[in-house]
Parts: sequence; structure tokens; C-alpha cells
Amino acid sequence: MKKRTNLLLLLFTLSAMVMMAQEKKSFTLDDLIPGGSNYYNCSPKNLYGVQWWGDVCIKPDMEEVKAINPKNGKENTLFTLKEINDAIEHGELPYKPIQPLKPLHHLMDASYPWADQNVMVCQLSSNDGQNQYIAYYDFAQKKIIRLFRLQCNNGQSPANIDFCPASGYVAYTAGNDLFVAHEGDYSTMVNPVLMGSNGKENTEKSIVYGQAVHRNEFGIMKGTFWSPKGNYLAFYRMDQSMVTDYPQVDISTRIATLVPDKYPMAGMTSHKVTVGIYNIRNGQIVYLKAGDPTDRYFTNISWSPDETKIYMIELNRDQNHAQLVRYDTTTGDKEEVVYEETHPKYVEPMHPLTFLPWDSSKFIYQSQRDGYNHLYLFDTRRKMYPETRSAAAGGTYRQFVKVQQLTQGNWLVQDIVGFNAKKKEILIRSTEISPLQSNIYAVNVNNGKRRTIGNSEGIHQVQLSETGSYLIDRYTTPQVPRNIDLVATATNKTRNLFSADNPWEDYQVPEVEVGTIQAADGKTDLYYRMIKPVNFDPNKKYPAVVYVYGGPHAQMINASYHYGARGWDVYMAQEGYVMFTVDNRGSENRGIEFENCTFRQLGVEEMKDQIKGVEFLKSLPYVDSNRIGVHGWSFGGFMTTNLMLTYPDVFKVGVAGGPVIDWKYYEVMYGERYMDTPQTNPEGYKGSNLNEKAGNLKGRLQIIYGGNDPTCVPQHTLSFIRACIDRGTHPDLFVYPGQGHNMVGKDRVHLHEHITRYFKDNLK
Amino acid sequence: MKKRTNLLLLLFTLSAMVMMAQEKKSFTLDDLIPGGSNYYNCSPKNLYGVQWWGDVCIKPDMEEVKAINPKNGKENTLFTLKEINDAIEHGELPYKPIQPLKPLHHLMDASYPWADQNVMVCQLSSNDGQNQYIAYYDFAQKKIIRLFRLQCNNGQSPANIDFCPASGYVAYTAGNDLFVAHEGDYSTMVNPVLMGSNGKENTEKSIVYGQAVHRNEFGIMKGTFWSPKGNYLAFYRMDQSMVTDYPQVDISTRIATLVPDKYPMAGMTSHKVTVGIYNIRNGQIVYLKAGDPTDRYFTNISWSPDETKIYMIELNRDQNHAQLVRYDTTTGDKEEVVYEETHPKYVEPMHPLTFLPWDSSKFIYQSQRDGYNHLYLFDTRRKMYPETRSAAAGGTYRQFVKVQQLTQGNWLVQDIVGFNAKKKEILIRSTEISPLQSNIYAVNVNNGKRRTIGNSEGIHQVQLSETGSYLIDRYTTPQVPRNIDLVATATNKTRNLFSADNPWEDYQVPEVEVGTIQAADGKTDLYYRMIKPVNFDPNKKYPAVVYVYGGPHAQMINASYHYGARGWDVYMAQEGYVMFTVDNRGSENRGIEFENCTFRQLGVEEMKDQIKGVEFLKSLPYVDSNRIGVHGWSFGGFMTTNLMLTYPDVFKVGVAGGPVIDWKYYEVMYGERYMDTPQTNPEGYKGSNLNEKAGNLKGRLQIIYGGNDPTCVPQHTLSFIRACIDRGTHPDLFVYPGQGHNMVGKDRVHLHEHITRYFKDNLK
Repeated sequence: MKKRTNLLLLLFTLSAMVMMAQEKKSFTLDDLIPGGSNYYNCSPKNLYGVQWWGDVCIKPDMEEVKAINPKNGKENTLFTLKEINDAIEHGELPYKPIQPLKPLHHLMDASYPWADQNVMVCQLSSNDGQNQYIAYYDFAQKKIIRLFRLQCNNGQSPANIDFCPASGYVAYTAGNDLFVAHEGDYSTMVNPVLMGSNGKENTEKSIVYGQAVHRNEFGIMKGTFWSPKGNYLAFYRMDQSMVTDYPQVDISTRIATLVPDKYPMAGMTSHKVTVGIYNIRNGQIVYLKAGDPTDRYFTNISWSPDETKIYMIELNRDQNHAQLVRYDTTTGDKEEVVYEETHPKYVEPMHPLTFLPWDSSKFIYQSQRDGYNHLYLFDTRRKMYPETRSAAAGGTYRQFVKVQQLTQGNWLVQDIVGFNAKKKEILIRSTEISPLQSNIYAVNVNNGKRRTIGNSEGIHQVQLSETGSYLIDRYTTPQVPRNIDLVATATNKTRNLFSADNPWEDYQVPEVEVGTIQAADGKTDLYYRMIKPVNFDPNKKYPAVVYVYGGPHAQMINASYHYGARGWDVYMAQEGYVMFTVDNRGSENRGIEFENCTFRQLGVEEMKDQIKGVEFLKSLPYVDSNRIGVHGWSFGGFMTTNLMLTYPDVFKVGVAGGPVIDWKYYEVMYGERYMDTPQTNPEGYKGSNLNEKAGNLKGRLQIIYGGNDPTCVPQHTLSFIRACIDRGTHPDLFVYPGQGHNMVGKDRVHLHEHITRYFKDNLK
Repeated sequence: MKKRTNLLLLLFTLSAMVMMAQEKKSFTLDDLIPGGSNYYNCSPKNLYGVQWWGDVCIKPDMEEVKAINPKNGKENTLFTLKEINDAIEHGELPYKPIQPLKPLHHLMDASYPWADQNVMVCQLSSNDGQNQYIAYYDFAQKKIIRLFRLQCNNGQSPANIDFCPASGYVAYTAGNDLFVAHEGDYSTMVNPVLMGSNGKENTEKSIVYGQAVHRNEFGIMKGTFWSPKGNYLAFYRMDQSMVTDYPQVDISTRIATLVPDKYPMAGMTSHKVTVGIYNIRNGQIVYLKAGDPTDRYFTNISWSPDETKIYMIELNRDQNHAQLVRYDTTTGDKEEVVYEETHPKYVEPMHPLTFLPWDSSKFIYQSQRDGYNHLYLFDTRRKMYPETRSAAAGGTYRQFVKVQQLTQGNWLVQDIVGFNAKKKEILIRSTEISPLQSNIYAVNVNNGKRRTIGNSEGIHQVQLSETGSYLIDRYTTPQVPRNIDLVATATNKTRNLFSADNPWEDYQVPEVEVGTIQAADGKTDLYYRMIKPVNFDPNKKYPAVVYVYGGPHAQMINASYHYGARGWDVYMAQEGYVMFTVDNRGSENRGIEFENCTFRQLGVEEMKDQIKGVEFLKSLPYVDSNRIGVHGWSFGGFMTTNLMLTYPDVFKVGVAGGPVIDWKYYEVMYGERYMDTPQTNPEGYKGSNLNEKAGNLKGRLQIIYGGNDPTCVPQHTLSFIRACIDRGTHPDLFVYPGQGHNMVGKDRVHLHEHITRYFKDNLK
């Protein structure tokens, strides 16, 4: 009888649990992984296309565009989708396009460049998709008032479209050529067409105009730079003819075809970049007379407000000497070096100059010279005799004009948001409150005093109105999925535009916690994130998986929603794994010495810190020390493979995605910054070459790569497989044919199914 | 007390078993897999270089060459390694080579072409390995009497060396060019050097001279054909300029490089072959006037004994119409069609003509026209009015001269060994005794009577002496690892030269058995081989693995040692798996209808037969029906993948190596014979395209391929991985970078470790 009671009680408890489980759903990978069929529904909702029209806030929805007065919050409808589509389909156009124009599906992708004009600028395409246009829609007149056609170039579609509000002109590329659209149907090809020896157009892919160069390092995201008044277009020209092709193969054609990709590998010959200036009025081009472009980086192009000068930050190939150089716009002549910095490891300029809107002789320069990225105010009128001065950690700098440091402290400026000219304030995003946060500050340029704008929590992304009086402040905190406010910068007065609901309301969500451990250097705090299995029972022993990235310019743990927990980590926690991540030394937002301790020996210090993380994990009574796995992608794939081979008794299972295996197969710009060249740092390259350690493999390690990965080329993974075979070890392998460095779309769900299965097979 | 006794007894039994296990060793993969460190010791020993010098048997060993009189078995030493090396290093040479010659390491690679001369012909190389020579060593004079240098061609080493005993000349290729070595230091390039448009030598790889063509189908193994008296050299010229490149990639270079490979895929443009005749005396070339070479196969080149005529068997691209055509040697003129055959499926000529040594007007032609490969005697002097006659299974033939069928029956002639001219006998190898065997018969050309030469067991490989009086008879049977006899062809009197010991004497060898089951057609017997686990216990339930090939021109089960059991199968049996193989319809040595029932739908009938094999397996009480795996390579990789996808509930685990996935990615010659083209057989291609079935995968399937497989190009495997990803299924994958279609060397051991681990992980 007693037994029966107990059984009934147990049954009751179980059914209560089942009830709870029924009330709260379990996640599938389709819920949690980008590309999954239910991913959208499981992500915080958003407002798209919110932006400024002068100091008026534009808020589009599917059917209409609203204007909000930020002073009082009053909304009125500017125009509707139907109105603009009527104008596109039936209205009078500036000229008759070759093919009819396709109506718009929504009003999210548009801009409102002129506070004093009732004009929306958007991109249109022809019905057959063959032609692209930039259109001006006058929502007062309800009429398309201008229409530029962007030409196709031998069937290559327009890309890198760069609209200049000052002139109304549009720069764009098609293939490797650069164009400017003037009016109507007419574009000018900016670069001279190369003629082959047979008198026909040179179709070689080796010279590229108007696109980002130096493989998007040094903050370079584009290749065209309009001058402030729109009279000039500066552009990059990149000659890649001397760069080796990596033979990528497309297997989707009838018979596989070669898709060669210019890829300069560490220590090998790199491309040559020059900077041209195209004069809109006379069509002439001058190239900046910067000297021999061999083994040099031309970064962070900035215009002076009056368009007479152009500045670049120039770096040697060794990346340990940066010069800010000024050129004359009309002649291309080099005028002078304004500032320079050296560092025994590397200097990494990431930001162009920002001129003060109220004083065109002064600009803000950003530098890590005191150990953290901070703002320096340069006064171009006050020349200085340039003494060489010491900077942090053995660096030096020389300044040729008067410079005043505007911010300082053991935190860093992340970017400049803009100015409030009236108050002589510059608005920035910084980590001052916590390395996990990004908050907005207004810094007084005269006295350096700072005040917070918006709240002091989480991660903020903002857009400043034309006068600097208002911010659109989008933020997230560990508890807030997404919030969009209008903030008055003077008063910090806030008006909510949007708050996203918790998209996981109906799901059983595992517990996410963040804390710190001490790094292997015995002094630095490192942040970790731990996700505990759902229905966590502290008396159980759980397997644990370390998710690792570990490389520079990335931070896995921050104060965003759920502390940045990744969907797959949440899924694995649901499946009964303790998920653990630590941002080791070398990662972002902690200053230059935290980052550059890895110099010339990538992986060594990073792994020591990861092992500190594992020691912490093992100290937890509910973690099974014999069942620890590791997973990471890209630099994290390098770390995963390295950890499996360097600490073969610590990790039982690893999955490494798109890994770097041997830094000599990685590209010049990123690779040599941290590793120098194979010629100058042979020990460092050998020590970090995982092929040398291939014989150490004990546990189960699966390598996964994109079949056409242009970043960590397939040679990494394939050379590792070869090395393991030669040394008699047995990794596992998977490939996503046709994919690049990261799996996108539906493949990403398949990828995470595949990763999950591997851990379930081998770390059970 | 009783309990203790039992325990003691059990301990005693266990230690007895341990003792037995200690007495007989277990195999490692290094013992059983080619490339393994102990493979040589675990293989039957052999005699190398045994051959005829007229009717004298040559038996070299490491230090000396013995001559055996086959009449009485008496041996005497002809010469020693020291003697020839003295001649090479210190003796008088015909001329002074550029670099000193390297001494020989052994005497196995040599020939003795002239019964009346004391001359051995061998290849020598210079000390620096840069130059190759053909040398005549006179072992009576103890002197090198002739020395030809084989030229390198732009650094490409000599290959395809074809020595002509009649003239003493040597044909060879270097790069894509063809050469003839005349005397001393002098070679002639046979083919005209192609001049590029810039006046320089054309280094394009698109035209190939003197090499095998048509991707080695139709029995084509070489590209040079000396005339009987050595006055002419016929050679193939292959223009591949119109053939698409498959982009193979070499990852072993500093940065991966393209290694393009001409690969004509089914239904796509194929290469064009012509046949040239080089006149040794005047250096002139005539090309056979065979007409437009587009989509034609020129196969089985044969010379008339008097050198005035040359014959080819010509096939259309559809491979269903073969013509034996005669040409004039000096003009290249086409004289006449001698014979032709059609078949609604395909005709596959595999053998050149063999003229009777005692009557140069008669030759033997081999044809499968009655359903099995048999011998037909053609009398070129007796012209016939060519009627179209019916052949087996809807085929037809027309003969333009008198033809007499010499052999017939439900068995097939495998090859012609030679003649005993005195007895007017032709010696053949055939399957007359059993489809599993190859035995030697002498067939009387006058009356067709046959008699066995050597014994009636196993698989024989023979070399006939000059007069046809003696055979070197190498054979193996299921019980005999290797035996080498001298056999007098007239009397069948046998003298043993060598018998290999059982190399597995010290090992625990699993039991191998062979039997028959009925094919899915309900009438045909199929042979199977089963290997039972060591210490087999009929009361246990064992997992079973089907090893499958299943394609044409291969037979997995035969009467060789252990019935052809593969090393890996033996290993897996030792590891507790029942290993099973069945030669399905479509495989070799069973006649044309057994083979061609698979026409236009490869895989369908073959799989039905394999399923018959599985039904048999499941009927065995000791086989666990829930644990059946399958493994195969190449066509067997196609079968494995196909079986996993077509019968997902039958097979739990599969490992497919170097598979065909979609026949449209396979080459023209082999592929179109069995499948026609994608254009003419779209249903057949679709039905056999495994990418169409990728969504059916239920069990665990690993695909393994050679990273540079030139036969089943990587596109097969990679397209399948892509298809599985698209359909949400999860195969596993492994690659051997740098390997071709079959893994060779140490990699082959790694491969079988990898395959074994997969079955142990998933079929346990």
C-alpha cells in the first residue's frame, strides 16, 4: 500500500512536470538558427527604416511613411505605398525608361537626404529586373522628379551604390569598373577602359576600381568617397595582377569550373593600391602622388570640409608605422605628414578623421597610443616641431600640429556618433561603464567633460538627427530584447518608439549567467558566459561544451539580450549540455595590450585562458570533467583544433568550422598584423601551424568548411586532413559545397544539426 | 564451495582460450592492407623476373641470373649482378654517356629477346637520375654492347618505353611527344612539333602522341605498335583541344594550384583520335585515311605479318556497331571492311587480331556474338558475299571473308596465350571449367579439339616459350597461395619451380566459404563468398557487412587463394563481422547477357541481386538482420550509396568510396557504353542519379574520395553532399587529399582504419 502511494506521488510529480513542459515549448534548430524556418518568429521584432529627415523622425511601415515630431511625439502620415506606386506606374516620369518600372513592395529602403525638401530617394528596378534606377520621389507633388539609370557593364549588375546628397550624383561599380550616374539615362565610366593587346576591352579581373581594398581591413568598407560638397569623388584603384590566384572550383556547373580568386597569402606578393580623385565638373582624374604603392596600405580616406585637401592614414606592410598624410586635391601632390605613430607590435588605424562642424581647421583623430582607443583633437593651424614621444608599451608618436587628448581612461571609444554643434559636443559610443556595454556619451570639446545620453545599460546603436538635437536610440540589455527610443540630447528626455516583446515567452529558456575568472596572466579579469541545461539539477553531472572564438576584433559576451547567447548554445543547453564561453586575452573591447599579447604566436595565450575557463568548469560539481567538448568557427575553428591537439586529455570532442590551420595560408593584411611574415617569424608560424600537431589528436574532432571559402581557403582544412593521414590520426570531415566562410540560409540549420549530432554521438 | 569450483573451471577455460589466442596471432591492418608495414610478409612469396630466353627459362635472383633447361630442369648461372655492374661501372661502353651510369640493384627488370644471342636488354639511368638508357648487355662478352639514350623533353622524363626486338629500336614518349631512339645518343621526335602563333613550340597539352587513347577502354593499354619486322611504328594521335577541363586542384603547393585534366563527360564533346604510321627508314608519316574522327573509336590496332596491312576495329560513339577495317600501310588508304557486328545494346571489342604463325593469311578474331567471347578463324584469302546474319540477343554480324568458329559453349575465352606451331595449336585461357577459374587449353586450329594444359584448378597466368613447347605456369587455388611450374605443352609434364608457403600460418584465419544463390531473375546462379568471424559460434548473432563492387569487367569471387577474399574482409571477420559478397548480374566472366541486362539503367538489376544476397544472409540464424552494413569502392561506391538510399530499411551503415553519383559526370567511353548519353537516355540517367534519392538517407553513410580522383571526379561526391544538405539528410564524409581514384601506399591502411572505425562506431 505504501509503495502504491509513492508510485502515485511520483506519477503526479511527473505529470506536473509534463504539464509544465507542455505549457512551455522546446526549441528546434529552426527556431534558433538564422536561416531556420521559424527563426524570424523567435527573434525580437524590429522597426525597419526608422531614420532622420533633418530633425524629423521618419517611421515607415508596410503601407505608409509616418513623420514624428520628436519634440511632442506627434505622428502624421507623409505618404503611402499606394501613392508612390501610382507615381511609379502611372505618373509622369522625367523620361520614359527602356522597360516599365517595378512598383515597390515596402518603404523600408529609402532615404530623406534634405531637411528642406519633400524628397525620398530610393532604388527602383525595371519590371524585367535588368535595369536599376535611383529615383527621387517628391511626396508633396506625389511625383518621381528625378530618375538615374545605373548601367550594367557587360551584364554585371550595379553594386556599391554611393549616393551623394550634396550633388545628387550617384557613384557605383559594375564588374570591376567605376561609374558616376549624372542625369537620366547617362552614366560616365570613371576609370579608363583598359585596352588589351588585341585592341579589345581588357576583361582581366586584375584591376578593380571603386571597391573596398586591403581585404576590408583597417575599417575599409567601401571604395568611393564623395567630397563634402560633391564636386569630387575619391576612389580606390587596386591592381591585383601580381597576386596569386587561389583556384576555387564551382561544382554546380555541368562540369565543374574554375573560379580563380586573387588571394595574397602571408609573405607573398600583395596587391598595389592607389587613390584617384575624379573631378565631377571636368571629368579629369588625378592620382595622389603617394609614391611606390608596393607593400603599403592606404587607409581611412578623409576630405577636408572645403574639399581642397584629402587625408590618408598610410601604413607600411609591417603595419608598425602609420602616418597621417595630407594631399592637395587638385594636383594630387603630397603636402605633409601631420602625425605618425609606431609600435613594436602593430598600429591599427580604424577610423577616418572627423572635422569639427563649427571649425574646419580642427579634426578628431582616434588612436590607441595610450593603450585604449581615444579621441585627439588636432588643430591644423597650430604647427609644431615634431618631437618623438613615447606611447604605451614601447610605441612612439610624432605630432606636427597641436594635439589635445579629449578622452582618456581604461575604457575605449568605439565610434563617433556625431556632433551637437550648438553645445560644442561630440557624441560617442564607449565602453566606459563596462567592457560588455556600449553607451552613448556627449563629450564637450572645449573642456572634455562627459555626460551620458540615453540609459547606462546594455548595447546602444544610435542615429543622430541633422542638428544633433535628437537621437534614435536602439538598445538591448540582457533583459531587454530590443528598445527604440527618441532621445533629446540636451535634456536626455526619452520617448519610446518601440519595445519588442520577449520572443521566447512560450519556450523553456535555459538560464544564462555571466561572471569573471582570472586570466592565465594571473591578473586580468576575463568574462565568461554559462548557459545551464533547462530543468537544471545541481546534483546531476552534465557534459559541457566550450564555444570559442578567441580572435581579435570580436567579443562573444556582452550586455545584449541574454548576454549574446547564441541560438545553438541555447539549443544545446536544452539538450542537456552546460554551454560555456570565455573571452580570452586577444579579444575585443579591452584595450591594446589585452589584444596584442598574442603577437607573433597566435593561439598560445588565448589557449591558456581557455584552459583557465575549463579549470573553472571542472570546479563546478555539476560538470562532468570527462565529458568536455569544444566548438568554434574561423578563428574559433583554429582555437578548437588547437585545443584538441594541444590539450588532448582535456577535450573529448571538438567541432572546428572554417578553421585557420596554418597562418601561412591566411591573407597578408590580417595575418601579418598579428603574425608578421613566414620569412620574418618562422618559429611563430611553425608553433601555430596545426599540421605540426596533427599527430596529437586523441579525441573526436570534426572539421567543417565551406567548399568555396574565400577567407580561410580550403587548403587549410585539406592540408590538415593530409597531415592527420600522414601521422595516422583520424579526424572527421564535412563540407558545404558552394558555401563561403560562413554557412548561410537553410544550410546553417543543416550545419547545426550536423554539429549537434556529432556531440550527441561522441559526447554522450 | 561449489561456486568456487565453478569459478576455477571458468578461469581454466579462459586461460586455455588465451593460450590458443597466443599461439595464433591476430591480424592488424598493416598485415592485410597493401601499403601496410607488414603486408609483404603476409603475402605469398613470389619469384620475380622469371621469363623465356627462346625455350630456356630465365630465373633471376638478387645476385645472379640462372638459366633452366625445361627438359631436364638443370640450372646454370648465366651471369651475376657483380659482372654486369662491373661492365656498367668499369667496362668499355659503346660511347661515353653525359653522366656516369648507375649500377643495377637487381636483375628482375630485364628481357632476353633473342634466343640466338647472349644478350640481356635492360633500362639504365645516369647517376644523377636525369638520363635514361636502354642497354644491351652481352653476358658472354661481359660487356655493354649497345646503349640508347632516351631524351628528356622540356624536363619531362621518358615514359611508355616500347622496345622492338625485331629492329632493336625503342619508341617512347616524353611529355605529349613521341620519340624513337635510334643509336647512341640520338632520338628522333616522331610527331611534328606544333608551332604556336608566336613562333614558339606549342606547349599546349591538348595533342598527345604515342599514348593510350579512349581512356584505356576497348583493351587499349598503349599508344605505340611496332610492325612485326620493326620497319614501321604505328601510333595514336589524340587531339583533346575540344575536350573540357576538369579543374583538379593540387593543395600541396605553397598556394594551391590548378591541375586541369581533360575529361570528356557523358554526352559532351569527346576527343579525336587518328592513327599514324612512322616509316623508320625514311622518317615519313602517313595517317590512316579513316575519315572524320569525330565521335569514333579506333581500337585494337593489328599488323599483318608482312607489314603491308594494318587493321583496326572501328566503333561508332554509340558503341553498337563495330567494323574490322583493313588499311594499306604505305599509303594509309582504307582498303575494305573485313567484318562487322552490331548489337542493340553494345559491342565491345577488346582484343586485336592474332595471325596464325604458320599461315599469314589467317587470323583469329575474338567476338561475343554468340553470347560468350569465343575464337573465330578468318581466312583473308576466301572472300565472301557479306550477308547480314543474326547474332545472340538481337545482334547481327556480316563477314566479308570465310570465318570458322573455333570455340563455343557457355563459357568464355579470356585471352590467347600463344601457339604451338608444330602441333597447330592455339593456347588460350578460359572459364570452361568454372566461371571462377582461368585454365589453360590447347585448341587444335584444324579440328577445334581442346585439351587442358597444366592442372584443372584455380587461376592460371602463363608465359609461353618461343616455340610454344613450354609454359611458365603461375597459378593459385583457394588452397594454394602461389605455385610456379614449368609445363611441357605437348605432354603436360610439369616441373615445379616455386611453391609459396602459407603466409598466414601463424595467424588465426577466419573461415572462407563460397556458394551460389539464385539471382533476382529467378534463374541465374550467382556466386557468393562468406567469411565467418574467427572462433565462430553458430549460436551467436553477428553483424554482417556486404562488400560490393557489382560493375562490369570485375569479379570479386574467384578460385584464387581464399577465393579472392580481401584483406579488409579477413580483418573484419576477425573483428566479429560476417563478411559477405555476391557477384551480381552485370559482373564479369558470365557472358554478355549476364553483363548487359543492366543496360541504360545501371544499378537496378545489380541491386536486386544484392538484395537476394541480403535475404540469404538474413536467413542465416547467426546473422543479426538489424545490423547489416555495406561497403564498396568506385562502381561499388555507387552500389553502396544506391543500396543505402533505395533500401534504407535494410542497411544500417554504409561506406562508399570514390563513388559514381550521377553518370552524367562520368566519362564518355565507359559511361555511354552502358548508359548511352544523357540526351538519348534521360530517364535512365535520372533513375540512376543518386542525387535524386539523397533525401532517402536513413542509416549512417560515409562517402570517402580521393581529393584528385581523375576517374570518378570529386564532383560526384560533392554534388551528393550538396544534394543531401538541400534535402536535410546527413551523410558523413572523408577525403584523401592528393590521392586519385584508389588510395595507395600507407594511406590505404589509414583508409581501412577509417572505414573500420565507422562500422565499429555505428554497426556495433
